[in-house]
Amino acid sequence: MAPWIYIEDLKKHIGEEVTLKGWLYNMRSSKKIRFLEVRDGTGIVQCVMGAGDVPAGVFESTGGISRESSIIVTGIVKEDARSKIGVEIGLTGLELVAKAQPYPIAKKSHGPAFLLDHRHLWIRSRKQVALLRIRHEVIRTLRGYFDKRGYVCFDPPIFTANACEGTSTLFQTDYFGKTAYLSQSGQLYGEAGALALGRIYTFGPTFRAEKSKTRRHLTEFWMMEPEIAYLDIEGVMELVEDMLVELVAVILDKRAEELKVLERDTSLLEKVRKPFPRVHYKDAAAKLTKMNDRFKVPFEDGDDFGAEHETELTKSYEKPIFVHRFPAEIKAFYMKRDKDDPQASLSVDCLAPEGYGEIVGGGEREDDLDALLKRLGEHSLPKEAFDWYIDLRKYGSVPHSGFGLGLERTISWIAGIHHLREAIPFPRTIERLTP
Amino acid sequence: MAPWIYIEDLKKHIGEEVTLKGWLYNMRSSKKIRFLEVRDGTGIVQCVMGAGDVPAGVFESTGGISRESSIIVTGIVKEDARSKIGVEIGLTGLELVAKAQPYPIAKKSHGPAFLLDHRHLWIRSRKQVALLRIRHEVIRTLRGYFDKRGYVCFDPPIFTANACEGTSTLFQTDYFGKTAYLSQSGQLYGEAGALALGRIYTFGPTFRAEKSKTRRHLTEFWMMEPEIAYLDIEGVMELVEDMLVELVAVILDKRAEELKVLERDTSLLEKVRKPFPRVHYKDAAAKLTKMNDRFKVPFEDGDDFGAEHETELTKSYEKPIFVHRFPAEIKAFYMKRDKDDPQASLSVDCLAPEGYGEIVGGGEREDDLDALLKRLGEHSLPKEAFDWYIDLRKYGSVPHSGFGLGLERTISWIAGIHHLREAIPFPRTIERLTP
Repeated sequence: MAPWIYIEDLKKHIGEEVTLKGWLYNMRSSKKIRFLEVRDGTGIVQCVMGAGDVPAGVFESTGGISRESSIIVTGIVKEDARSKIGVEIGLTGLELVAKAQPYPIAKKSHGPAFLLDHRHLWIRSRKQVALLRIRHEVIRTLRGYFDKRGYVCFDPPIFTANACEGTSTLFQTDYFGKTAYLSQSGQLYGEAGALALGRIYTFGPTFRAEKSKTRRHLTEFWMMEPEIAYLDIEGVMELVEDMLVELVAVILDKRAEELKVLERDTSLLEKVRKPFPRVHYKDAAAKLTKMNDRFKVPFEDGDDFGAEHETELTKSYEKPIFVHRFPAEIKAFYMKRDKDDPQASLSVDCLAPEGYGEIVGGGEREDDLDALLKRLGEHSLPKEAFDWYIDLRKYGSVPHSGFGLGLERTISWIAGIHHLREAIPFPRTIERLTP
Repeated sequence: MAPWIYIEDLKKHIGEEVTLKGWLYNMRSSKKIRFLEVRDGTGIVQCVMGAGDVPAGVFESTGGISRESSIIVTGIVKEDARSKIGVEIGLTGLELVAKAQPYPIAKKSHGPAFLLDHRHLWIRSRKQVALLRIRHEVIRTLRGYFDKRGYVCFDPPIFTANACEGTSTLFQTDYFGKTAYLSQSGQLYGEAGALALGRIYTFGPTFRAEKSKTRRHLTEFWMMEPEIAYLDIEGVMELVEDMLVELVAVILDKRAEELKVLERDTSLLEKVRKPFPRVHYKDAAAKLTKMNDRFKVPFEDGDDFGAEHETELTKSYEKPIFVHRFPAEIKAFYMKRDKDDPQASLSVDCLAPEGYGEIVGGGEREDDLDALLKRLGEHSLPKEAFDWYIDLRKYGSVPHSGFGLGLERTISWIAGIHHLREAIPFPRTIERLTP
C-alpha cells in the first residue's frame, strides 16, 4: 500500500501515490464520476473517483457510503489551483472501514443546545476543527513565549484547604473527611514559586461556581498565570503587551487557513501592535460617567466595570488597552497600594477590543508583612488559612508582580467568536455537565 | 545601575558589571572578606565582598544579613574554574531589600513532615529547585515532541457527569444541584478528539481518591494522554519508545547540572536507547510465578502486577520494558481483545527500570459497537452514561489507540528520587491538603 500521509502534508507529495486514512465528509456524484470530500483531522481534501480509475465494483459500492463513514483511500496527489489547500487526489482505490449510521448533525443549522448535546461529534465540523486548532496554537505559543525567556512551568494544586476569597463561588469536595476546595486561581502558589524560581507561570484548569449565565462564563476554564520576582506594574504591562503582540502575530501567520474558515476579519488583528494605550482608572471612570445614558447599569466612579462598560471604553481604540490603578476597595486583598495614592491599587486589566473585554488581570502584590496582615483583617479573612502565604513576606519578601490570562476569552477574541463555549473542547456551564 | 542579569546568563557577561536581584542563600565571613552565595531562582553564584570594594559601611552591615533575606547586588563577573557555574562575582555594592526572620529550614536535616509543612519555603532549596526545573523540562519536551509531529493539545473536562469506573476512587462535588465527578483520566474524551482531529494529546491534572499511602500515589497528579486514530498496539509501543528515548536524551543534555545536584547516576539513563524489550504478559507471568519465594504477595498467572512484581520483572533489564497483552479480565472495559487470543487484551504497560515500575499504560480501544456494548454489560456499567462514547462507534468508528503517561512517576524515574511527592510543587496525598 502507498505510504500513509496526513492531508496537511499532501503538498509535499505532489505526483506521488499516497494513502489517506480518514472519514467521508461529503460526496457529490454523477454517473461516471464522484467527488468525495475526505477529512482526516488535519484537513479536508477533494478526492475525484472516475468510474474506470478504481477496481471493479468500487465505484458502484462507494455510492452507498454515508457521511462520516471511516474510509481508507489511495490516489495520486495533483496540484490544483482551485482547491483551498492547493491539491486534490485522483483516487485509485477506496476501502470502507466502518459505515456510519445516519449522521445526526445535518448540513442545515441546528440550535446551540442540540449541538452542545452532540459536542463529541460537533467537534468534527470544519469550524469547530478550526477553533480547536487555534486553541492548540494559542497554548503552544503562550507556553513557548515564556519557555524561551527562562520561566519555569509551575503547576499549583487544584485541591486547597482554604476558601481564600469566600466559599460562595467555590466548588468543594470531601477529602478523606476534610473539605477541599477547587482552586479558582493558582496565583498565591505562583508567588511562592516566583520567590523560589525567579520567574514562573502556571497553566491549568480553574473552577468557579458562579451562577452567571453569560456568554463570557464557564465553570471550568483554563488560565495562564505568570508571576515574577522583582517586577513592578510597569513591567507587567510591558510583558503582557509583548506577549499578546507575539501571540496574535503567530496565529495570523500559522493559522491563516483556520481564521479564513471562521471568517475572522484579520485586518483588526493586524492592528495589534505596540504600544497599547494605558488608561488610568480615574480617566476611564470620568469617561464612563459621561456615557451613562448608554448603559443598563449606570456607572459610578469607584465601581468595577461591567461588560457593557468595558465595551464602551474600548470602542475608541483599535487594539487592546490597559486600565490601571483600580480602587483598592474593589480589588483583592493581595493587591499592593499605590504609594502616591493609597486609595488606588497597583492593579491592571487588559481589555480586548471589539467588545471582548477583560482577557488579562494582574498587578503588584502586597510585599509588606504588616500591610498584608492589615488587608487580611479588612477583608475578614482568617489569618491561619494564610499562614504559609504570610511566610513569603517574613522570609525574603521582594516586590513582585504577575497576571492571569483567561485562555478561552483570549481564544474567543482572536478567533472572533461570540460565545466562550466554542473555545474549549467540552464546555462546562451552570446548565451543562455533559457530554 | 548596572543591567539586571539572571544567574543562568552570567557566563555571557564575563568582565562586565551586572546587577543580580535575589536572596542570600548562605554566607561565610572573615575580618576582611565575605563570601556570599546568592540565589535568584535560576542558579546560585558565589559573590566575594572585600572590605574595601564596597561603599563605606556596606561591608559591616552585610554581616547582619540573615539567610533568605532579599538583596540586590552589583559586581563584576569573573571567570572561575573552581565554580560549578564557571563564574563568580566581585561585589561592588549590596542593597538589602528585606531582612528575613530566622529561616525555619536549617542546614541540618529535617523529617519529611516538617519539610512538607514548609513546602512553600522548601522549594527554594537546591535539590528542590533542581527537581522543579527538571519537571519543567520534562513537560516542555513531552509537549514539544507531540507538537512537532502535528498532534493537537486537546483539554478534556475535569467535571464529568458519570462515574465511569465506579465511584469508590472518585472525588465528587455538588454541581448546581447535580453531582459532578472529578476526572480520573481524559482518555474517553481524547478518543472523541482523535476521531475529530486525527491525533491529539491531553495534558492536565487528574484525581484519584485512592486510600493508598505509598510513595507512588498522589491524589492529584498530572497525566499526558495521546490518542491516535488508525494506530494499533505496535504503533503505540513504537511511539512510547521513541518519545521516552528523546525525553531522556533532552534531560541528559539540558539538565545535566540539575541531575548532578540530585546525584543521579546518569550512566543508567544513557542506556535508554531503542529498542525496548517487548515481553508478552504470559512470559512475564511465567517468570514471576517462579519467583514467588521473593514476594510478600505471591503472584498467580492472571493477576495484575504489584509494585514488587514490577520491580523483579524489570531487574534483568537496564532500560524500560513493555509488557503487552494483559488478560482482558483485569483491564478496563474499553480495551480491545486480541483476535488471536480473545482472553488477552491489546493492552501494554511500559515499566521503568530501577524499581520505578509503570510509567505508561495504553493500548488499542474497542472499536466495534456490539463488542463495546457487551463489555459495558460485563462490567455492569450504565449504558446511558456512555451514550456519547458509544456514538463514536456508530459514526465512523476506526481502529485507534493511545496511552497515558504519569508525569510525576516519569519525573521520579528520570531524576532518581524515591517519593513522588517531590516531583510536584505542592503534593496532595491522603494525609496532606496543605500548604
